[in-house]
Amino acid sequence: MPMPHHFRTLFYPKSVAVIGASHTPGTVGYSLLQNVLQQGYTGKVYPINIKGGTILGLPVKRQISHVTELIDLVIIAVPAQFVPTVLEEAGQKGVKAAVVISAGFKEIGKKELEDQLVTVAEKYDITLIGPNCLGFINPEIMLNASFANIMPKAGNIAFMSQSGALCSTVLDYAKSMGLGFSKFMSIGNKACIGELEILEYLYHDPKTSVIMMYVEELEEAQKMIALAREITHGKKHKPILMLKAGRTAAGSQASQSHTGSLGGSDAAYSALCAQSGIIRVDTISELFDLAECFSENTLIKGNKVAVITNAGGPGVLVTDEISSKGLELAQLSPETINHLSKHLPQSANTHNPIDILGDAKADRYDLAIQAVAADQNVDGIILILTPQAMTEIEATAKIIISHRKKIKKPLIITFMGDQSVQKANTLLNNAGFTTTTFPEPAAKALAMMNYFRNWIKVRELSGYRFSDVHSEKVNKIIDQELKVDNRVLNVEISSKLLAEYGFTVLKSRMIENDDQARRAASTFFQPVVLKIVSPDINHKSDVGGVELNVSPHDIPRKYKEVLARVKANQPRARLLGIQAVEMVESTGLDLILGMTTDPKMGKLIAVGLGGIYTEVLKDVAWGIAPLNKYDTDRMIHSLRAHPIFDGLRGEPPLDTDELTKMLGRLSQLAMRFPQIKEIDMNPVRILPEGEGVKVLDARVVLFD
Amino acid sequence: MPMPHHFRTLFYPKSVAVIGASHTPGTVGYSLLQNVLQQGYTGKVYPINIKGGTILGLPVKRQISHVTELIDLVIIAVPAQFVPTVLEEAGQKGVKAAVVISAGFKEIGKKELEDQLVTVAEKYDITLIGPNCLGFINPEIMLNASFANIMPKAGNIAFMSQSGALCSTVLDYAKSMGLGFSKFMSIGNKACIGELEILEYLYHDPKTSVIMMYVEELEEAQKMIALAREITHGKKHKPILMLKAGRTAAGSQASQSHTGSLGGSDAAYSALCAQSGIIRVDTISELFDLAECFSENTLIKGNKVAVITNAGGPGVLVTDEISSKGLELAQLSPETINHLSKHLPQSANTHNPIDILGDAKADRYDLAIQAVAADQNVDGIILILTPQAMTEIEATAKIIISHRKKIKKPLIITFMGDQSVQKANTLLNNAGFTTTTFPEPAAKALAMMNYFRNWIKVRELSGYRFSDVHSEKVNKIIDQELKVDNRVLNVEISSKLLAEYGFTVLKSRMIENDDQARRAASTFFQPVVLKIVSPDINHKSDVGGVELNVSPHDIPRKYKEVLARVKANQPRARLLGIQAVEMVESTGLDLILGMTTDPKMGKLIAVGLGGIYTEVLKDVAWGIAPLNKYDTDRMIHSLRAHPIFDGLRGEPPLDTDELTKMLGRLSQLAMRFPQIKEIDMNPVRILPEGEGVKVLDARVVLFD
Repeated sequence: MPMPHHFRTLFYPKSVAVIGASHTPGTVGYSLLQNVLQQGYTGKVYPINIKGGTILGLPVKRQISHVTELIDLVIIAVPAQFVPTVLEEAGQKGVKAAVVISAGFKEIGKKELEDQLVTVAEKYDITLIGPNCLGFINPEIMLNASFANIMPKAGNIAFMSQSGALCSTVLDYAKSMGLGFSKFMSIGNKACIGELEILEYLYHDPKTSVIMMYVEELEEAQKMIALAREITHGKKHKPILMLKAGRTAAGSQASQSHTGSLGGSDAAYSALCAQSGIIRVDTISELFDLAECFSENTLIKGNKVAVITNAGGPGVLVTDEISSKGLELAQLSPETINHLSKHLPQSANTHNPIDILGDAKADRYDLAIQAVAADQNVDGIILILTPQAMTEIEATAKIIISHRKKIKKPLIITFMGDQSVQKANTLLNNAGFTTTTFPEPAAKALAMMNYFRNWIKVRELSGYRFSDVHSEKVNKIIDQELKVDNRVLNVEISSKLLAEYGFTVLKSRMIENDDQARRAASTFFQPVVLKIVSPDINHKSDVGGVELNVSPHDIPRKYKEVLARVKANQPRARLLGIQAVEMVESTGLDLILGMTTDPKMGKLIAVGLGGIYTEVLKDVAWGIAPLNKYDTDRMIHSLRAHPIFDGLRGEPPLDTDELTKMLGRLSQLAMRFPQIKEIDMNPVRILPEGEGVKVLDARVVLFD
Repeated sequence: MPMPHHFRTLFYPKSVAVIGASHTPGTVGYSLLQNVLQQGYTGKVYPINIKGGTILGLPVKRQISHVTELIDLVIIAVPAQFVPTVLEEAGQKGVKAAVVISAGFKEIGKKELEDQLVTVAEKYDITLIGPNCLGFINPEIMLNASFANIMPKAGNIAFMSQSGALCSTVLDYAKSMGLGFSKFMSIGNKACIGELEILEYLYHDPKTSVIMMYVEELEEAQKMIALAREITHGKKHKPILMLKAGRTAAGSQASQSHTGSLGGSDAAYSALCAQSGIIRVDTISELFDLAECFSENTLIKGNKVAVITNAGGPGVLVTDEISSKGLELAQLSPETINHLSKHLPQSANTHNPIDILGDAKADRYDLAIQAVAADQNVDGIILILTPQAMTEIEATAKIIISHRKKIKKPLIITFMGDQSVQKANTLLNNAGFTTTTFPEPAAKALAMMNYFRNWIKVRELSGYRFSDVHSEKVNKIIDQELKVDNRVLNVEISSKLLAEYGFTVLKSRMIENDDQARRAASTFFQPVVLKIVSPDINHKSDVGGVELNVSPHDIPRKYKEVLARVKANQPRARLLGIQAVEMVESTGLDLILGMTTDPKMGKLIAVGLGGIYTEVLKDVAWGIAPLNKYDTDRMIHSLRAHPIFDGLRGEPPLDTDELTKMLGRLSQLAMRFPQIKEIDMNPVRILPEGEGVKVLDARVVLFD
């Protein structure tokens, strides 16, 4: 258990020292002091610079030890090599919180220097942000401990970014959107404090109700999932929005095994988000739209949306977006329709989307918004205004604002246009309304809100625990293989290992010579498949290495045939023998199941459509171990082939229940035996309901 | 051949009469006159109103016949019922162009009134826009013949919209983006002039180089494809951008047949665009980004993009977008890299994306933009600026502007932020640069440009023509069926019809009684499949209506068995008999091929993955007949299952060539016999290369 961090001291310091405060305007050291001093912070401020003198009217101390008063927070901007020393001095003085702006550490290969820094921070129990960051802002107390020169409005959004550069842009956008922040920070190299620690703090921070993250790389996926789940799913359920950079580059690191080649770490990030309730967005503008929507609205209570518009076209466009994003157009109540019909012109559309016509003035908006706000069938509202000849743009904004308190459901307002609607948008933003420039993003934001609503309703988030497993026997198998320095377990041993852990594996014998072939003939009582075993052959049937439907007494003869055939086709392949496996009925569907280890994200579990379609259709779902029932259900449901499982066109439904458990079992195996690097079960045949799931072929790979 | 339209008179009139000019400020009739008079138009203007008097200082004539001078264009805004009469008067006076603003025609069910209008327009050979529209604007001569009160800049973009309301919004956005228009129009009910006529005009309009369309519904897909192809693919190749509203609602009209149920008219619109080179966008903001990009840049010459940024994060985000949209990061030339390395700080990234670091001033942008603009390996440029402490926002804009003429490749500029970058964005927009608020859309716009570049390179756009077909025999079959009032042709007759048109159909016999069963036994020389034939059964195997691998001599016995089994399972189904079809080898892949008729779009051709996957994976591609080689190739390549065709994991490649031709043949059949409503070939087995494609089961449906 690590010591609790001094986040309170960090974000709410009573006194701040700027170490490396500079005399030269325009430099970082100068800007930092200026920002702390001149943006409303009321605590004590001490500039520190070895040269002494006066900056911005304040006397400069040459060292922090020369300050006689207590100091809560130090902001450090001296050259990298001096940072550990000045931090040591701060520690000696009893400082408990630090922000290191200085760059020149791990990011340019100086990991040792960064390690030194961590050592000092740990020695003095200092909560340290950075190094190589922009700093942070706490608008609540007007403290700008960063070198970004904008002080955002105080509000309920927390923002953390792995990119400092993005921060200035975010502040600029936020200002024009009227977004308010609880905490705003750039976390740099994350030497001491990373996303996990910050999230933990923000969860308990009463000022924060929405969390925005810009992420380039995460570690410790398992911890992140557990913590994020607590945050997004607990009683307080704060939404977390994540923009992850580097979606595509990662895909290039395809591994050799089937399982590995289908994913790439982006699939892992998606799984992480899906399992933890984190809402993943794809673009910067989505991040903003959604943050604003969550920040300014109560959570949507259902998926029924009403649209009010003075133009048919945008109404149709937003309807498209609504229905393609899992929302529905609300069926307005008869009272609403009657009320609208009575007061709107005859040619208005009083059904949803409500078209109040191009000549609508503010009064029609007034009527419509009040009606849908009161309609129980409506969960969320999108209001669209196009500036036409008769349109009262600002008056309409004012009327909407006058209903602020009465509207108890999410409302997103799109005044379509630029200059002609700018004033109205400013009014609306200042009054705390969510606005978008175009109508489509409004629907998307409500859809994501609805996704979050569904997430917090999920009940079962506890993990699987299977007791019908023989861990000691699995251990023994692993030890034996390691003893002979083998990492890639052959199919027989792989099957045995899986069988010990409760998987249903087909009866199988490894045949390495004629003698074993004869013995195998008397072991089986029904037809078998013969398959070549070779570390050099990935696709056995391509080289004639598979023989179907061999009667037990035929095994010795066919054994020789297959061997000869493969030798002829692949003279240089090392052939370790032939595996005989009992035949399985051809009903059901072939799948692929696998586990692979991602160095950053941990144990990834995959399930997908097997056979020829695996590579072509890439219909694969990913999860991060440990998996729970919600996760395994999500994985199976997200397969495009999923309807086949429910029984299609007279085919019997398949044993989805057993498949679900199998994923849970695979997850448990992966967690219990971290020394297993990869498991590839391909194919796995899912049989009709009640008949189980059988592993037809398997390979287990251990770590070096 | 219709008479040529008087578009020149319409868009460039020397004199304009506003019929229904109103005395009351704020009304449409007043605004119209005001817009024609006060926005710079230098022609003669005549207000017409039955009441006479003076409006805006002009004497009002009571009737158009009272005007003694010639009138080129009339703008009509009198109540609907009077429109035909005033148009008649205008016609008598020799007016050749009209815009009817008045609403109250077909859109509220008054089709007859609209027909009257058309009759008058045709009688006097008047080129008429509307009714029920906003009007048009020709910025070149400052003529605002609409009731939108903004006069946009003159430029090279033509915009036409089926929604009047959207026009005002578009004008507003366009103003702030600095977009210039050649022609701007709302086309309303399209009583006389629709998209086809306008496109034809715009193609030849020297002022137009980009065409933007907002569409709610199109007709005559075939003509649209032919014309759009000419426009997008000819020597002048003007890009057409289409935003289609109503993507989702249409999907609900699923028909009974397989083919029909997989599509819906949205698939048809996508096919229309894919076949004609029209660029379909999904949202309003995409429409703008793309229009601006095409309007202000030369066409991209390749798919290699260079990114210049002062912030890593946005650089990564845009790289994601680049590589997921079919573009590539350019490999900078060694000279460029050397040059950048020499002049940029050491920690800058001189490889693409070029990171000139957070403290970059205008000089580093200057260096980078010149270097990539000169680099032969770079086809397009995205320049990103985040406003940081040291950033010289406007100075950077000015430096970029100074290179305007030297940059001969597409450049999209993203100054990320709002207020702090507003001035710079205005400078850039006024100088004719393409800007986006966020970096991701920049990549998307270049990707669409690259799509268009690939399109205009396509050579083969001429259609198929198969001569090995027996049309007269097909005709005979159709006539025979119609004679007995049959619309749904049974499998035997369907197969015969298809065979006459050159399809390879399996040998097949219809068996309706024991006698025929005995005869069938001597007709076949290899095993057959027996299948029930019933108008009430869609999925034959679900009810035991299929028996595989029946030896010819067994046909009589199995015939009885199958019949009995289906009777037991579906006592109420009408059983017409049993079809015996020769067995086909089980290599290859089962597909579905079909044709269906869309009342608006014409003959739609579909090809998709067959069997159980048809409904689950919905891997289907659509085309609109007539198809050419480019279309059929596109359809086949767009199937997710396509890699299977090329031979996968040792399987032989399939006969894609024959499949392609089969689609062409199906298209020819559909065009030649419009009386065929639907063709459903399911399954169709594509065999290994050189072995052809065989139709295993088929159904042809005729129109009532």
